[in-house]
Amino acid sequence: MRSKKSDSGTPAGQGERAILLEIRSRTARASHGGLRLGIGDDCALLAHRPGEELAVTTDLSIAGRHFRLDWHSPESVGHRALARGLSDLAAMGARPVAAFLSLGLPRPLTVAHGRKPAWVNGFLDGLLALAAVHKTPLAGGDLAESPLAVADIVLVGAVPRGRALLRSGARPGHLLYVTGALGGAAAGLSLLAELAGTPNVAQTQPALSQPPRIPKNLAAQLAPHLYPEPRLAQGLWLQRCGLASAALDLSDGLSTDLAHLCQESGVAAEVDSAALPLHPGATLAQALHGGEDYELLFTAPASARQPRSIAGVPVTRIGRILKPRPGQPQINLLTPQGPQPLQSHGWEHFS
Amino acid sequence: MRSKKSDSGTPAGQGERAILLEIRSRTARASHGGLRLGIGDDCALLAHRPGEELAVTTDLSIAGRHFRLDWHSPESVGHRALARGLSDLAAMGARPVAAFLSLGLPRPLTVAHGRKPAWVNGFLDGLLALAAVHKTPLAGGDLAESPLAVADIVLVGAVPRGRALLRSGARPGHLLYVTGALGGAAAGLSLLAELAGTPNVAQTQPALSQPPRIPKNLAAQLAPHLYPEPRLAQGLWLQRCGLASAALDLSDGLSTDLAHLCQESGVAAEVDSAALPLHPGATLAQALHGGEDYELLFTAPASARQPRSIAGVPVTRIGRILKPRPGQPQINLLTPQGPQPLQSHGWEHFS
Repeated sequence: MRSKKSDSGTPAGQGERAILLEIRSRTARASHGGLRLGIGDDCALLAHRPGEELAVTTDLSIAGRHFRLDWHSPESVGHRALARGLSDLAAMGARPVAAFLSLGLPRPLTVAHGRKPAWVNGFLDGLLALAAVHKTPLAGGDLAESPLAVADIVLVGAVPRGRALLRSGARPGHLLYVTGALGGAAAGLSLLAELAGTPNVAQTQPALSQPPRIPKNLAAQLAPHLYPEPRLAQGLWLQRCGLASAALDLSDGLSTDLAHLCQESGVAAEVDSAALPLHPGATLAQALHGGEDYELLFTAPASARQPRSIAGVPVTRIGRILKPRPGQPQINLLTPQGPQPLQSHGWEHFS
Repeated sequence: MRSKKSDSGTPAGQGERAILLEIRSRTARASHGGLRLGIGDDCALLAHRPGEELAVTTDLSIAGRHFRLDWHSPESVGHRALARGLSDLAAMGARPVAAFLSLGLPRPLTVAHGRKPAWVNGFLDGLLALAAVHKTPLAGGDLAESPLAVADIVLVGAVPRGRALLRSGARPGHLLYVTGALGGAAAGLSLLAELAGTPNVAQTQPALSQPPRIPKNLAAQLAPHLYPEPRLAQGLWLQRCGLASAALDLSDGLSTDLAHLCQESGVAAEVDSAALPLHPGATLAQALHGGEDYELLFTAPASARQPRSIAGVPVTRIGRILKPRPGQPQINLLTPQGPQPLQSHGWEHFS
């Protein structure tokens, strides 16, 4: 990780250097596992085990698009940025090897305000706490001053060769499963919007940023949105047991992500609405279309018996994979009123 | 590479889907070498050879900071974004395995204007042309709509275990070398500013973006800035021959980057101003402090004779490494008027 001079002429400023030193001091001890050389050189160096291949994913988080400075605490923004990348590794059945962070921040977010530490410190607190849970060293990245807060998270993971869980392996007759509960993130976001007072325009500038205080009794309801838990242990278990034929993580919402799975596998699917594991407080619409639950959606042959839970998280059968038929919807939702086509559409979070 | 829904509620729009399909169609054939699985799943999968380790680097390019929409053509922005990452691999002596791109763009940059193709197409043209030269497949990434144009480039490279060129290996008595010529990028940028008419405020919004036409007779002078050539062949050669004790790429300018090398190696240095290979048209100040030349700076024991050129690019001895002494400057510049401390400071590009 370096903080390069930009074309606008200013070399890495005091603020950027301070952040760099802060990150370096907080990650030096994390140099274990596959990480041979971390922050301080032109690249990080990663070792690997024979017979493994590497899984790589990048996820961009942009102020006003993926988070709001007036809604989300810096700790939540850091946690969620890393969770998105870790969830992609979970969906492949990979173990994390290292994370990289490219961070562009407006200057006010990099300096302390009186006794209040700088926003970037809270961001790193949230990111590094989740990284510690999953033993993922922050191995490098880039820093720049930016008029808009942006964070690109890169995750590198490892998986035994040929064993990664892909989106393309679902076959007609396979059953459809989901981990955990659905709709909790959308329900939490809806509650957060109420607490924040829903201003009309997404806040992108740091000047007025002050996320609402979270009353203690609401923390649990907001947690699925503010602090989602990527299902790494579950993805790893599925990969090791070889039970799943296809998998992905629910980042865009079931209706959208299942369509991706069907498309990559060349199949159709039906979902039983009565079987969906709704998160307490979530509506059916939030469970179907609300994104960012970061649960795993996977398929398996009917002969492969699934456990009721994996590493403490429930597993629920929610439907099955079908042959695609011309003129038929790609995904049908079975309801008490009969089957209905399930259209992909995202939950309208911020509108 | 996926185009995820963001919290602002819009699922991946038509424009983003079109970009995704465009990228996927243009990169499908590039799936060779270490890339086992490219765009379309949760992660890309990379294979590797036994005995190698992986080098990873990320580089953020932000409109108004690293490029200007009213100065740089989209082709140049795409080329420069990738060149920064490839140059980091060159500095480690690594061969490129795959590139990843996280791209946030304002909507106007993603749509065609009359008969003029979308800005993003030109960006991809520039990026993929350089990727093709260095046989680097674009293996994945992320796409999002953003009020500000941002591109984070991730490069994964491979290098035989324990053979990477580090910043930390320079020792007192070693000689200091540089590839190519210095100051060309800063001189080119200065010329570009004249052509563009140097408005006072860096242009970040796409509305008025129209980079100046480059007269044919000036193209060669502007090339070091608009289309820098990362020194991959030279880095690979140095790594394979084992001649260099330390190396980095000149992204921030000699005065800043040499200070980084001295810091990581715990040494001091002296540079002979008369020996510096000035790019035609560049001043001494531009050669010392102008960034983005992307030449390699390296050290080697005096016993290791260096060739006059590596893969067609000249190599010049510009100074030597010294023991650090308390109270003495870290870097001295030898001039006809005697030695002077060489302060790290970036060239004031856009001011």
